[in-house]
Amino acid sequence: MPAARFNPLVKTLAAPPIPEVQAWKREYVGSHGPLIDLSQAVPGYPPHSDMLGWLGEAASSVSMAGYGDIEGEPELRAAYAEWVSEIYTTDINPANIHITSGCNQAFMAAMTAIAGPGDTVLLTNPCYFNHETTLEMSGVKVGYVDCHAQDGFLPRPEAVEAMIRDGVRALAIVTPNNPTGATYPAGLLQVLFELCRKHGIWLVLDETYRDFLPLDAGAPHGLLSNPGWQDNLIGLYSFSKSFCIPGHRVGAVTAGSAVVAQIAKVMDNLQICAPRPPQAALAKAIPALGDWRCANTLEISARASALIEVMGGVQGWDVAALGAYFAFVRHPFTDLSAFEAAQRLARESGVITIPGSFFGNGLERYLRVAFANADVATICQLGKRFTSCSGD
Amino acid sequence: MPAARFNPLVKTLAAPPIPEVQAWKREYVGSHGPLIDLSQAVPGYPPHSDMLGWLGEAASSVSMAGYGDIEGEPELRAAYAEWVSEIYTTDINPANIHITSGCNQAFMAAMTAIAGPGDTVLLTNPCYFNHETTLEMSGVKVGYVDCHAQDGFLPRPEAVEAMIRDGVRALAIVTPNNPTGATYPAGLLQVLFELCRKHGIWLVLDETYRDFLPLDAGAPHGLLSNPGWQDNLIGLYSFSKSFCIPGHRVGAVTAGSAVVAQIAKVMDNLQICAPRPPQAALAKAIPALGDWRCANTLEISARASALIEVMGGVQGWDVAALGAYFAFVRHPFTDLSAFEAAQRLARESGVITIPGSFFGNGLERYLRVAFANADVATICQLGKRFTSCSGD
Repeated sequence: MPAARFNPLVKTLAAPPIPEVQAWKREYVGSHGPLIDLSQAVPGYPPHSDMLGWLGEAASSVSMAGYGDIEGEPELRAAYAEWVSEIYTTDINPANIHITSGCNQAFMAAMTAIAGPGDTVLLTNPCYFNHETTLEMSGVKVGYVDCHAQDGFLPRPEAVEAMIRDGVRALAIVTPNNPTGATYPAGLLQVLFELCRKHGIWLVLDETYRDFLPLDAGAPHGLLSNPGWQDNLIGLYSFSKSFCIPGHRVGAVTAGSAVVAQIAKVMDNLQICAPRPPQAALAKAIPALGDWRCANTLEISARASALIEVMGGVQGWDVAALGAYFAFVRHPFTDLSAFEAAQRLARESGVITIPGSFFGNGLERYLRVAFANADVATICQLGKRFTSCSGD
Repeated sequence: MPAARFNPLVKTLAAPPIPEVQAWKREYVGSHGPLIDLSQAVPGYPPHSDMLGWLGEAASSVSMAGYGDIEGEPELRAAYAEWVSEIYTTDINPANIHITSGCNQAFMAAMTAIAGPGDTVLLTNPCYFNHETTLEMSGVKVGYVDCHAQDGFLPRPEAVEAMIRDGVRALAIVTPNNPTGATYPAGLLQVLFELCRKHGIWLVLDETYRDFLPLDAGAPHGLLSNPGWQDNLIGLYSFSKSFCIPGHRVGAVTAGSAVVAQIAKVMDNLQICAPRPPQAALAKAIPALGDWRCANTLEISARASALIEVMGGVQGWDVAALGAYFAFVRHPFTDLSAFEAAQRLARESGVITIPGSFFGNGLERYLRVAFANADVATICQLGKRFTSCSGD
């Protein structure tokens, strides 16, 4: 009586990395004060009190308990389309929006719509690990475009083009980047878009951390103003970070209505529709909480400045890249892997980060630091924490 | 500049069927009174008021806004494990439970864990259409075990065994069945389990409608008491129907802890974790709302009895099978496809059902009737509605 087997594409996947690094918390004895968790990106402040009120109201209503539209609540699709139109000074309508259960699901649903087993999708190296595992478990091959510290971890267009060959269906990038924090300039994004268009592949743009870009920076890009963008561009977004509601699971896809129709077929299988009550609350929050979001963006900017200042005084550790929510920090231990360095920082200094090696090959000298999790006062403690873990 | 292409596995999928039949509502002019929607399974009564209170409380709390465990809230895993242990008089612990965003996602996550592109999974014919499309979009081949009206739409074990060959990874069944309502006897389930075990494949059991079985029927099966069941059995469940909260999206998998570990890797990619607030509410509702659930089960039984009585007086229409939530009804139109018959019933009599052909081949004479959506008074009107659409 043989035991039934697992899908080798899943069996060979590593266990989810966040719980693995969270386990290090138990190894820290508290010698430098409370733990500072800079691993999973989690805003350190609570949702707006109005938001909590709207969430409670929607969740306790009879009407929201029933099934909703696969593509999302009409009110949220309209509110998000309007917001996207404002940000990018363009004209996006509700038919261009598909609501999902968070941005991981937006990626999964979009990828399933455009790439099947045996196809190839290009990611950058480093990349967001869940993008990699999502493709791997679906039998989609991953091609890596190497990004280097000397380029600020931005991909070179010629390196992208060199990777485009038969079977490549898409280039998926994250800006502002997870893990490095690198923010792709609008000009580079336009070049990458034109490259994808030239070769008839999709540019998939994950902008989960978009709302933490400097307020005076203008539109992140002009891609949605390219005529016919619908044929080659898919935008992904998460409400988790900007509205501090990761536990409610809501994200969005911005795409041509033909893409939305394909994604609806995938979503129906994945889970019929995203949970409805937080969608109703977000439809209210998008127009109402603009000032609160701006204040948060300023706060996160202050945290970024504080980190740069603090790390400037730490021997041996270097901030290799930084932007929006993350910093990619070079550790001083030439004889330690990124995993060992992160574990040592956790164990000795009570700072939880994610090893660079979780994001790709050749990244053993880096740690991802979700600095935006911590307030400025906490970031000021990081100097002592990093210094105390300097390898001497 | 070629447009980028879609995944052919998704592009060739039919559009989700529920919205398609919902569109018929606009074609009914109201000549027989208000529309009666017996298409998507939607309990006609609201959630318990305590449940609405718990949902609102959890959704408006700061703590539930943050990320949770991939496998689900510990409180819900514990409460559900205890409930499953009671129902099947066995000993299931929280490590055997993985919470998902509804039962479609439970199916998707479980299937991804056990079958990859090119593998085969056996379904019955008729089958629940989302099971079929989920496998198809994943590149998993589907083998069909034909079930016949004369067998009450139950599969014959020898027909199942004849389909098991190299590359077959699982047999997935739904009991009480969607679409036919057929309830698999415990003895048949044990035979199918032993068959799967003998051949080293998984038996995946979707019991979304379990709580609507007659109260005096005893445990639905004894499969969870088979020593080593963890190596061959995966149970799926939805909280949507029993707690009237499909809009909140919560389901569950019951499986060995090794399966749970594989599913956690899939879930992390699919959406990190199920939405947390309804999980917290359900952890309270499972032990607290037992009496309410029993009353609903009795109500649904009364609706089933009413349907049988009413249809007994309708010329030309026959109830071919019935159980828990659904009836599989034979229409009188020898010259119409199931689609045409359902459309005619919708248009002329204002009764929305789903064509049998949506559930498989050779089912042109049947319609799926989600009778449990309607109260007894509404079901009593069905006699006139069906009679008025009799083809004369």
